[in-house]
Amino acid sequence: MILEKIDQLAREWLEEAGNRIFMALEQSTVEVEAKSDRNDLVTNVDKATEQYFAEKIATYFPDHRLLGEEGYGEEITSLEGIVWILDPIDGTVNFVEQKRNFAISLGIYQEGVGELAYIYDIVGGEFYYAKRGEGAFVNDVEIPKLAEDNKLEDSLVIINTTAIRKFPQMLSVIQKARGLRLYGAATLEYMAVATGRADAYVSANLAPWDIGAGKIIAEEVGAIVTRVSGSEMVITEKGDSFVASPSVHREILRFEI
Amino acid sequence: MILEKIDQLAREWLEEAGNRIFMALEQSTVEVEAKSDRNDLVTNVDKATEQYFAEKIATYFPDHRLLGEEGYGEEITSLEGIVWILDPIDGTVNFVEQKRNFAISLGIYQEGVGELAYIYDIVGGEFYYAKRGEGAFVNDVEIPKLAEDNKLEDSLVIINTTAIRKFPQMLSVIQKARGLRLYGAATLEYMAVATGRADAYVSANLAPWDIGAGKIIAEEVGAIVTRVSGSEMVITEKGDSFVASPSVHREILRFEI
Repeated sequence: MILEKIDQLAREWLEEAGNRIFMALEQSTVEVEAKSDRNDLVTNVDKATEQYFAEKIATYFPDHRLLGEEGYGEEITSLEGIVWILDPIDGTVNFVEQKRNFAISLGIYQEGVGELAYIYDIVGGEFYYAKRGEGAFVNDVEIPKLAEDNKLEDSLVIINTTAIRKFPQMLSVIQKARGLRLYGAATLEYMAVATGRADAYVSANLAPWDIGAGKIIAEEVGAIVTRVSGSEMVITEKGDSFVASPSVHREILRFEI
Repeated sequence: MILEKIDQLAREWLEEAGNRIFMALEQSTVEVEAKSDRNDLVTNVDKATEQYFAEKIATYFPDHRLLGEEGYGEEITSLEGIVWILDPIDGTVNFVEQKRNFAISLGIYQEGVGELAYIYDIVGGEFYYAKRGEGAFVNDVEIPKLAEDNKLEDSLVIINTTAIRKFPQMLSVIQKARGLRLYGAATLEYMAVATGRADAYVSANLAPWDIGAGKIIAEEVGAIVTRVSGSEMVITEKGDSFVASPSVHREILRFEI
């Protein structure tokens, strides 16, 4: 019951937030500020979007908590109760430089279990959604389950430069793969794997809001999500991330460090 | 006069070819074969598309020549007369693996001068066009001239893995840039620079059909197109390619090899 209500409102709010972000691009009202370093950007639009969700959640679900990139939610170390994990704009560098290839990412966790996930690629016009156990969808079309027998040599892989530096075996992985792609937005790179456009995505440093929704959607179509070591990825802890179709996940894990 | 007629027919043929390619994806009638190596793919659709253009050109413009990737045109070493430079599907690996991020590329050269250019991103719904001296357009909206004062440190760059191996200074370029992107289709990577979504694109090995249209469109908005050394890029010769906004082009040329 509560999940149905959340689903209904989350969709409304995502649509409204998407429209506002689209208008901000059209009307050139985006203002950039740097955060920790020059690639860690935030804009007034990131902040306004998270604030919009924070106010809505506080009004409609005062006992839910929000874990958001811009800090309008709470300090969260456990996933007790219902937690909304939000990245108001994933891929802010793309948002600023390209005006495309970014997304809103929202995952809903109940007692630590990912129940609902939404990734909204506003300019690309793709709305990804999953409900645990009921499949994943893009624009209401079900995403097929991933093949179980893909091979790395036939695969496109997404491995960002920081991950290549941190995990030297990735050079051999890239050498063996059919090709390397880099899109610059973790959620959309997760969706590339979920839709079979790539077979693996490795990143050195992702936060809960980067993966909160992507993990749910990817797992729903049969992708394997772990740390680069193969160990479990705890959603509340920042760190490296490795998502791949099942056979390619096994194959990459066998590369020697 | 002749260019107006070419422009009118080229648009008709591109639209028809685009529809056929789209239907081939929809109906899953794409058949893959490898060419020189596993990343040099060709499909029945690449071949049929080039053949379609070859027949049309032979019928309407029997004295024009076609330089195409799949060899339905002629061996061409000079650009005398009017030459159609065609890549029926640029980004064939993306076409096969992703069903997106590929394009038809067509450039029209008259006595060696690029006069008309078309790049049609069929699935993305973007039709790029330029006429020499009259600006470049995407879906009939003029593409603004590139900024003259961009800095590498604020720029996204596209540098493929082969280029990184061949030109080691590119590692320093990537280190200094804001970020690396890789899309896997030369024409669309040219268009990323032309539209300001990236400030530089370096590739180790491109053929005339990869750059025949992209060079015309990029130069029309003020991008600089050369070899990686900074020397002139002769369109009929395969080799490396370096396109960038003017100030970023100068900045990257200063990196020591």
